[in-house]
Formats: sequence, C-alpha cells, structure tokens
Amino acid sequence: MPRSTNGTAPTPGALRLAAETAEAMFKRDAASQLIGLRLLTVRPGYAKLSMVVRPDMVNGHHICHGGYLFTLADSAFAYACNSYNRNTVAAACHIDFLAPAREGEELEAECEERSLAGRTGVYDATIRNAQGKVIALFRGKSYRIAGEVIAGLVAEAKQDGSFTLPPQSMEGNPQ
Amino acid sequence: MPRSTNGTAPTPGALRLAAETAEAMFKRDAASQLIGLRLLTVRPGYAKLSMVVRPDMVNGHHICHGGYLFTLADSAFAYACNSYNRNTVAAACHIDFLAPAREGEELEAECEERSLAGRTGVYDATIRNAQGKVIALFRGKSYRIAGEVIAGLVAEAKQDGSFTLPPQSMEGNPQ
Amino acid sequence: MPRSTNGTAPTPGALRLAAETAEAMFKRDAASQLIGLRLLTVRPGYAKLSMVVRPDMVNGHHICHGGYLFTLADSAFAYACNSYNRNTVAAACHIDFLAPAREGEELEAECEERSLAGRTGVYDATIRNAQGKVIALFRGKSYRIAGEVIAGLVAEAKQDGSFTLPPQSMEGNPQ
Amino acid sequence: MPRSTNGTAPTPGALRLAAETAEAMFKRDAASQLIGLRLLTVRPGYAKLSMVVRPDMVNGHHICHGGYLFTLADSAFAYACNSYNRNTVAAACHIDFLAPAREGEELEAECEERSLAGRTGVYDATIRNAQGKVIALFRGKSYRIAGEVIAGLVAEAKQDGSFTLPPQSMEGNPQ
Repeated sequence: MPRSTNGTAPTPGALRLAAETAEAMFKRDAASQLIGLRLLTVRPGYAKLSMVVRPDMVNGHHICHGGYLFTLADSAFAYACNSYNRNTVAAACHIDFLAPAREGEELEAECEERSLAGRTGVYDATIRNAQGKVIALFRGKSYRIAGEVIAGLVAEAKQDGSFTLPPQSMEGNPQ
Repeated sequence: MPRSTNGTAPTPGALRLAAETAEAMFKRDAASQLIGLRLLTVRPGYAKLSMVVRPDMVNGHHICHGGYLFTLADSAFAYACNSYNRNTVAAACHIDFLAPAREGEELEAECEERSLAGRTGVYDATIRNAQGKVIALFRGKSYRIAGEVIAGLVAEAKQDGSFTLPPQSMEGNPQ
Repeated sequence: MPRSTNGTAPTPGALRLAAETAEAMFKRDAASQLIGLRLLTVRPGYAKLSMVVRPDMVNGHHICHGGYLFTLADSAFAYACNSYNRNTVAAACHIDFLAPAREGEELEAECEERSLAGRTGVYDATIRNAQGKVIALFRGKSYRIAGEVIAGLVAEAKQDGSFTLPPQSMEGNPQ
Repeated sequence: MPRSTNGTAPTPGALRLAAETAEAMFKRDAASQLIGLRLLTVRPGYAKLSMVVRPDMVNGHHICHGGYLFTLADSAFAYACNSYNRNTVAAACHIDFLAPAREGEELEAECEERSLAGRTGVYDATIRNAQGKVIALFRGKSYRIAGEVIAGLVAEAKQDGSFTLPPQSMEGNPQ
C-alpha cells in the first residue's frame, strides 16, 4: 500500500475522498479535456494521468510542444494536490525537458507529494513514454486557498473519523 | 531601437532573418494554433505573442489552466530563441503564477533574451492581461542543436555581411 | 532616477527607509560577513552587493563553489525584498550557472524587483564579473511575514506621508 | 541494496570508484570545508552530507542563511553527480525553502539521481533536521564536461569489467 508524505497509509475515507474529488474536478475541467488527458489513478497526494501526442500538439518536427508536456504534468499535479478536497492552486512550477516525445506516442505523468506543511506543498511529476523513458521531470509548489473542491465533503469525511488534514506549520526561511 | 543582450542594435539583416524564421516556424506550428496563439512581434532574441482565454482553456472556476499560460509563455520563448534561424530547444523552464487569468481575457506574453553564450541562452517572458497586470513570470533555458529553422538562410544572411552569431563560450560552473 | 515595479520613482522617505533597513540588517548579518559580502547600493526593491572569490571559496579547480555564488545572489535578493522594512523571507530560488568565476575575481550581484503583489514578490539577480560577463542568473520568490526589520520605522515613515506599501492582491493561479 | 536510476544495483567496482572519487574531491574542496560540511555516504548517483548551523551562518533572527542551506544541498549534488569519476558541473539549481533551520541544529542533505542520459542528469536533494523535518527541497541539473575527477581511474575500473557509464542519448525537447 502506498504511503503518504508522513509515512502512514491513507485511510479508506481519505482514499474515497480523493476519488470523489478527482471525479468532480474532472467533470468541469474543460482544459484537460482539450488535449485529451485521461485520469488513471488518484490517491491522497498522488495522481497518474495519460495523454496521446496528437497531430495538433506537435511542431513542424512532429515533436510534442513543451507546453502540452507541461500541461500534462501540471494536471497530474493539480489532481494530486487537490486530492484532500481543499482548493489548492499552483504557485510555481519547474520543468526539465529530457527527451523529445513524438507524434502518436502515449505518455504517462505520475505525480507524488514530496512535502506538505501548512498551506504549502511540493509535488514531483515524471513524464514517461511507453518504453519507460523519462521525457520530462516536473516540480510544482502548491498553495491552499479557501474553499473545498466539493463543498461540504470534508466535514462529512471527518464525521466518520477517517480523514484529517496535516497540521499547520510555519513556512519559508527567514533570511 | 531595442538592443540585444550584447548591447548593440540588431542589423537590418538580423531583423529580416528573425521575421522570416518566425513566419516559417508559425506555418508548421500546429501546437501554437490549437490554443489560438497570435504572433505579434519577433526580433533577434525577442518575441511577443497573444492569446485569448477560451471556454475550453479554463477549469471549473472559469480560470485559465496553468498549462495554457505556460504554453503561451513557452511559445514566446521558442520564437525568441529561434530568431537567429538556428534550431534551438527548451532545456528547462520555470514559471511563477502570480494572478489568475479569467475566461475571455486577452493575454500578451513578451519574451526577452537575458543571456546567450555558446549553445545556451536564458530568456524571460512576462504574461500580462489587458490592464497590464502581471499574470505570470517565466524563465526558460535554451540549448542550440544542429540545423537551421529555414535551411540555407543563415549562410545567405552572412553573405550580405549583416548577420553574425554570438561567439562560442564555455558553459556551466565546475563545482 | 530608477523606477519601482509600479513605474513610479521612489519618494525620499522610501529611499531613506531602504537605506536604514539595509544598515540595520547588515549589522546583524553574520552569514553575509562570513564570505565577505559588501553592500554597495540599496533602494526600494533593489540591491547591489559585491564579493571577492577567496581561496577558501573555491574547489580543486580554483573555481568558485556554486553555493557561494548562490549566497551572493540570495543576499542581494534579501536586501532588495526587505527594503520596505517589512520582514520578508525567501520561499524559493532558482539559479542558472552560465560561466565559472575564478579565484581572486570580484563579482557583483545586482537584484531588481520584477513583481510585488500582496505578500508575494519576484526578484531577479544577475551576477557579473569585473569584465561585465554574466556568471549566473538568479530568480527568487519572496513571502512577507509578520513584523518589521526595524520595529516602529514604517509607522514613522508613514507619518511623514512618504511611504506606502503596495496594495494587497490575490495570489496564485487556481487550476 | 540501493538501486541506480536504471534499476540495477551498483557493482563493487562502481561503489569503490564512487568512494575514491569522493575522497579525492573532498581533499581539495576548501569551499565545503569553510562551512564545516561532513561527507557521510557516497554511492553511484547518491550522496549524503551533514552540516551544523554555526553562529556565523545565521542572520539576526538566529536562522540559517538560505545561502548555506543551498551550499549544503549543492555539495551533496556535486558529490552525487561526480560519483562516476567524470567531471560534472551544475548547470542550474532550484531550491524550495520549507521551514527555517536554527542556530546549533544539525542538518543532513541526501541527494539522489532522478535521471541520467547523455551528458545531462537531474538530482534531487532533501535537507532534513535531526527530527526528520524537511527544511528544503533542492533539484539540480548536471552537465558532464571533459576530464575525470581522478585522472586514469575510470579506465582502470573498466579493466576489471565492473564499471560502465550510462549510454549516450539525445537531450532536450525540440519545440
């Protein structure tokens, strides 16, 4: 069983919350659908998505535009960091392009939580092709804002005792 | 007259080369056309593009997906760093998301060269909305590979004496 | 006269506040003194520092360790983002190493504000050697926390009508 | 037994090469010694270092300067990416500061290889305090240049059949 950042396995309630949140997000996510993203797996702090490099997503060399590689990774990041049903946004992202992805290739982006403290999280996504070759490495920083992805659902999850958010903590490094 | 990284104004030959390279790139750039990017200005080491946030580029909050903001900035970067007609690719990019962009807004990305030495360049792009508000700041690192965007054009430009590439130099910081 | 991010020249009160804040910070900044940093200029949102690459700051190739190049740029960032006398910390930094700096070289880091909205700012620092060659490009993201660098000074500056902080604004990019 | 990026356990020859390379590097690494770094473990593509936050490494709040946190992580990165005895330099680094480190605290930086293809590698370092709290997350991009850390050693290691470098590959993402 996969473990979260704090080293414990997610509860059944947390797993259900992650799945329901992702489903609700995906229904209204026109942006991810424009490039044909498919949601493969979502768990607390984790998401895996796939994308096929279509002819309208490449440049003149039949190589996937870096913007769509980024969008794939950024969407995996969005599903991973919103998996607690707390509205969470991207503050900054970094991507290293390591190998080209060609027209027709199917790519997977797998995103994992590296750190979550207070309102701030750090998530790493890896894009691989069907042969397992690393196409790009992505790191995103998230910031939790007010509100829930599905209003009312966290309170409900808390009632059955199965879901707790990480404790608040100080952020940043005073210089 | 705008000046390049090394502090000199571009020659007419370099300006023409940048314009012709951009035109050739744009014709075969299906990826930029998928999200309706428009090419406003290209000069040596510089590009300005615009994009309207369409209904299929937003999430459930009617806010532009970060992936398309990145794609806009990344395209401005691509046109700026290929403006010398030398095939140049993105090695890595970083983006800071500073304010949301809403459905229907017209955005401009302006990309400028910060450094170009040997095969490696650093470019900064700023995305602003119609009110001039900064939506995102982007920094991309480029790497020149073999080949030209328009084969044969650099040699031609050199013949009229108006175009020279920056000198080669050592890269990186030995630790 | 240099202009701030919002396009207006700093008032005399803001310039004085920046100078006094920097002086107070530097007195208690043992960390910057360990590597012999010198403070050359501080204005609102701007700082310039210098450093000589000493024999104990290089590796076996007599090349400056990347950590001390970073520390130079990060300190310029710290003085620039704290220049309003509001306690401000680094949330994240990115550095591109473009050319090596050798033992004995004098380096300057110049840091400028690129964006400041709400609690979040983005600052760019450039490290150059004595010949003006770009050694490294740095980008830092700042986050304002509670408190002042010099307690009571902002209130005083406000009384003479010459100092106002930028307005609060929403941060981030809801996905 | 830890595994390398390509999923195989390092050979005894590769482990010995990593140890000897690190020892040779550390002897001439005045820069790491200036801030009292200690080398705990080096394996192919991996390094762990420690540092105590001394009084001359803090700012006025008794908090470690971000530059020294970076230097700790950057040194772990340098030992990890040079562990094959091929001269390798930092091209770019990114650091997220997540929690402050206080005067007197002992910190550990653990660096792991995420990708290595051709001349380019990506390495992640995590800085933790004695309680295991994540202080900073670092990602570095490496670039292999000519030469060896210990001249002649790779050829020797190859002779006993136990050491092979990863295969060359194309880099970057043509846009």
